[in-house]
Amino acid sequence: MSGYQRFTLLENLVERLADLPSIGRKSAQRLAFYLLSAPEAEVEALSNALLQARRGIHPCTICGNHAEGERCGICSDSRRDQSLICVVERPADILAFERLAAFRGVYHVLGGVLSPLDGIGPSEINLQTLFTRCESGVVEIVLALGTHSEGEATSAYILQRLQSKPVKVTRLARGLPAGSDLEFVDEITIRRALEGRVDLAPRG
Amino acid sequence: MSGYQRFTLLENLVERLADLPSIGRKSAQRLAFYLLSAPEAEVEALSNALLQARRGIHPCTICGNHAEGERCGICSDSRRDQSLICVVERPADILAFERLAAFRGVYHVLGGVLSPLDGIGPSEINLQTLFTRCESGVVEIVLALGTHSEGEATSAYILQRLQSKPVKVTRLARGLPAGSDLEFVDEITIRRALEGRVDLAPRG
Repeated sequence: MSGYQRFTLLENLVERLADLPSIGRKSAQRLAFYLLSAPEAEVEALSNALLQARRGIHPCTICGNHAEGERCGICSDSRRDQSLICVVERPADILAFERLAAFRGVYHVLGGVLSPLDGIGPSEINLQTLFTRCESGVVEIVLALGTHSEGEATSAYILQRLQSKPVKVTRLARGLPAGSDLEFVDEITIRRALEGRVDLAPRG
Repeated sequence: MSGYQRFTLLENLVERLADLPSIGRKSAQRLAFYLLSAPEAEVEALSNALLQARRGIHPCTICGNHAEGERCGICSDSRRDQSLICVVERPADILAFERLAAFRGVYHVLGGVLSPLDGIGPSEINLQTLFTRCESGVVEIVLALGTHSEGEATSAYILQRLQSKPVKVTRLARGLPAGSDLEFVDEITIRRALEGRVDLAPRG
């Protein structure tokens, strides 16, 4: 692209867009061309939205979720049950639960999972704040971490640390995902679904 | 998402991202969450790149391509053949040619194609500047517009307007795209490929 080497502003924009997750170089180029011909006000609005969101949103001082003030919308909602805490890895996981509108408790965002190989130990994620929260009136914590080995290890660590405390620790059920065809379900999932099988007509 | 209604900065960012072409609401949400946890400097760089590109890039005064100065990199490149002009619809089309590095001429960006139903007539696109360019030493113009009806109509209009001028007007060949399986090629393409068939061993 000889003729394009002088396009430093354009190249710079393409590079920045291509740095975003799941946006390849071709999509970045397409987006950049779109933005160059979009109304200047639209580009300004996007540019400002980026800065304002990045600068104005901080971790909630209670749960670690994204918050525009000191507390997130969930922690400052008096209708939520503060004695029931769902432990997640990232703020994005909260969205999945909130979409259901089926969970009336609050959350705790770890900001990661234990991963000794990557140098992520208990003090690198928001575990201490979770244990501190558990000391004041929490009845149950639901572990909703990923089912990969780091997620499992983190769940096991939390369970062990809370064993002596008067708090119930549960985790999400394991089993077949909705709409799955047994033929294509992996072994570990089938094994767990079998172990966790449910009696449909319990007697006695 | 009751608890999220207070996230005006986040919602605003998601809306803006979702306004971009080929970015759905889910991708926009994922991008927004990524950006919230990205280093502030990275978000600033993206925000600035957007504004700088949008404000610093203008149409080349000769060909209408994106330019950071008065002329684009191609028009100001003395090694390019200024007597050979390839006519395209959008600046993005130029990229496709430049990737080949097989075209040594220059370009002319129409900024659209004729589309009477949408109110786009000859004066709504950069046709006059093309005709003016053709009056000073241009030997050939290659029409490289889309093969949809508006592109064809625009090509026909240009050909008609230049018929009396001493300039050769060509268009890109029509035929089977590379790697195509005849079974899946549409009728119009096959008809054009047949009409444009090439004698492989011309005699006499």
